[in-house]
Amino acid sequence: MAEQSAASGPLPPGSTIGILGGGQLGRMISVAASRLGLQCHIFEPDAEPPAGQVAAAVTTAPYDDVDAVRAFAAAVDVVTFEFENVPASTLDLIEDQVAIHPTRRALAVSQDRLDEKAYISSLGIPVADHAEVSSRSDLAAAVSSTGGPGIVKTRRFGYDGKGQVRIGSAPTDGEIDEAWAELKGAPAIFEAMVPFTQEISVIVARSAAGEVVCFDPGVNVHRHGILHTTTVNGSLPPETVTAAIDIATRIVDALSYVGVMGVELFDTDSGLLVNEIAPRVHNSGHWTTEACVVDQFQQHVRAIAGWPLGDGSRHSDAVMTNLIGDEIDAWPHLAAEPGVGVHLYGKGASRPGRKMGHVTQISLRH
Amino acid sequence: MAEQSAASGPLPPGSTIGILGGGQLGRMISVAASRLGLQCHIFEPDAEPPAGQVAAAVTTAPYDDVDAVRAFAAAVDVVTFEFENVPASTLDLIEDQVAIHPTRRALAVSQDRLDEKAYISSLGIPVADHAEVSSRSDLAAAVSSTGGPGIVKTRRFGYDGKGQVRIGSAPTDGEIDEAWAELKGAPAIFEAMVPFTQEISVIVARSAAGEVVCFDPGVNVHRHGILHTTTVNGSLPPETVTAAIDIATRIVDALSYVGVMGVELFDTDSGLLVNEIAPRVHNSGHWTTEACVVDQFQQHVRAIAGWPLGDGSRHSDAVMTNLIGDEIDAWPHLAAEPGVGVHLYGKGASRPGRKMGHVTQISLRH
Repeated sequence: MAEQSAASGPLPPGSTIGILGGGQLGRMISVAASRLGLQCHIFEPDAEPPAGQVAAAVTTAPYDDVDAVRAFAAAVDVVTFEFENVPASTLDLIEDQVAIHPTRRALAVSQDRLDEKAYISSLGIPVADHAEVSSRSDLAAAVSSTGGPGIVKTRRFGYDGKGQVRIGSAPTDGEIDEAWAELKGAPAIFEAMVPFTQEISVIVARSAAGEVVCFDPGVNVHRHGILHTTTVNGSLPPETVTAAIDIATRIVDALSYVGVMGVELFDTDSGLLVNEIAPRVHNSGHWTTEACVVDQFQQHVRAIAGWPLGDGSRHSDAVMTNLIGDEIDAWPHLAAEPGVGVHLYGKGASRPGRKMGHVTQISLRH
Repeated sequence: MAEQSAASGPLPPGSTIGILGGGQLGRMISVAASRLGLQCHIFEPDAEPPAGQVAAAVTTAPYDDVDAVRAFAAAVDVVTFEFENVPASTLDLIEDQVAIHPTRRALAVSQDRLDEKAYISSLGIPVADHAEVSSRSDLAAAVSSTGGPGIVKTRRFGYDGKGQVRIGSAPTDGEIDEAWAELKGAPAIFEAMVPFTQEISVIVARSAAGEVVCFDPGVNVHRHGILHTTTVNGSLPPETVTAAIDIATRIVDALSYVGVMGVELFDTDSGLLVNEIAPRVHNSGHWTTEACVVDQFQQHVRAIAGWPLGDGSRHSDAVMTNLIGDEIDAWPHLAAEPGVGVHLYGKGASRPGRKMGHVTQISLRH
């Protein structure tokens, strides 16, 4: 632990950032921190986390191991997370000893899809039509009131399309039964399908001093509920870019947020609405590593360490493509492509749906 | 250690690269390796090496610790170095177990300034006028035959201006005495001062398959014998760029070199001549991290791991400035500069002349 605390100014080089979660996001945060002379300590229940290969220290312990959590908090100068579902009791323990960024409030809001929509609506920002679903009859009522089609999702612990069931426009009672059964009684939310023309995301950073910097919005394409590509090539009309950045800025300002946030938006004929927010570095911001002098990972580190934000302007156009499951087997060919940055996450086994790496193709900026 | 050996194809993701030396070059190689899903194991005599903060494993032992060297070699899939002065006996031990890249031949040539000049001359590439200095009378003869001024340098173990004494154009006997005394009897070389207009360097990579890729040549400015800035902004005439790349390519081809090499050149009215070569990633190539999709560190990893070389084309102009000694104290201001990538090396104490970090300013390509 370095001498100076976050409260009294920027964490000086030599300070240690604690990261809850040791996956690819933690790995890329740790690499970014090293550029600034900072080091990282990973806390991760699973053995041999990908982030541990590039971190100064790793604690392998369950999140409810009180002694391990306390020792971790004592060894670091600030804590962040790459994974939203860390138990509240773990965060309570840590917060007794050291600051957590982004703050608990942002995490709480984003952990519950219903609370998140309520919060964003309260800021005057549009979200999809939706309804709380606590019973089968709630679900049936929600479908008939919004007119379907839509998606019923668990309020908590969902990611990459997990905990989600699509419902068609005129579902039978049997289909409602089936969807309800699949939720296994978890509190849920029904979201009416949004007739969007494209999905956009904004990676926004806010510093402790309240400075806000957005990376250029990207256009996302999903496959099987998982991000497939993000494209940033000047194709968005300026008014859409301005509106997207305005929404992202209002959200982080309202939360007095510190760190990087991913804001996913639907672009519709009647304007933008927020799909969801992620209080962390985001898959749709991976392109920034190749196309900006300061990427989303370094921007996040700068924010949580009390540094000034960096220059996130885009020097090149970019298309980021995820490598899911055995798509990683193409690495020898991908590595030979001109203009391509290859990122492999150091995960042992590829499983269907598992994010194994990504590639970013850059080209002259339009 | 991964299943596949370097001989049978590219090292697959999950393989381990052993790095001899744990300074900032090893640190940046380790970060680059992580992008490709490879991990690094650092061997370094000093405790808490900067590279150890971003490596999967660190061995802290002297280079003559036979057991430690053998265990290190057994734990990795290929070995490279960030430091040229590893004892030959250590390399012998390692080579019994696992391949070293670049090879011993390149290292041997570059470790001795006299051998290096002889080798490069043998390829028909110009070098500075020079003479072997094994005695005081050799030194006096060299000065009078080349007509001075010049620099007398120890043949081995010199870097960043260490082991070098400048000699003026008409030195007194006392000045010759003093210079000779400063060498402390070490075998030396006298190099006549070259009337150069600028110093250029080329970072060249050669793969195991014989593919050669050069980054754009940069213009270097030194201060107190240490690199101060490298600028790559299209200012060099095309014929100089072509000649520089041709020289670098001939050297790596002649050596059947595998890895990245730094080739320092003097630009004179009668053309280019080679100042020195470094069989490793090089300070004058640090700008590539911000200005190319694949930087010199990743290019080196790709070469030694048997991968195809990446795209080293420059998407932006760049000026790299070293942070020496207490220049690092400016980090809070440097971090706030637009278009600037900041790199701090995680070294504890700043000492005069110690490389503590660097910054690279990028701008639109000319």
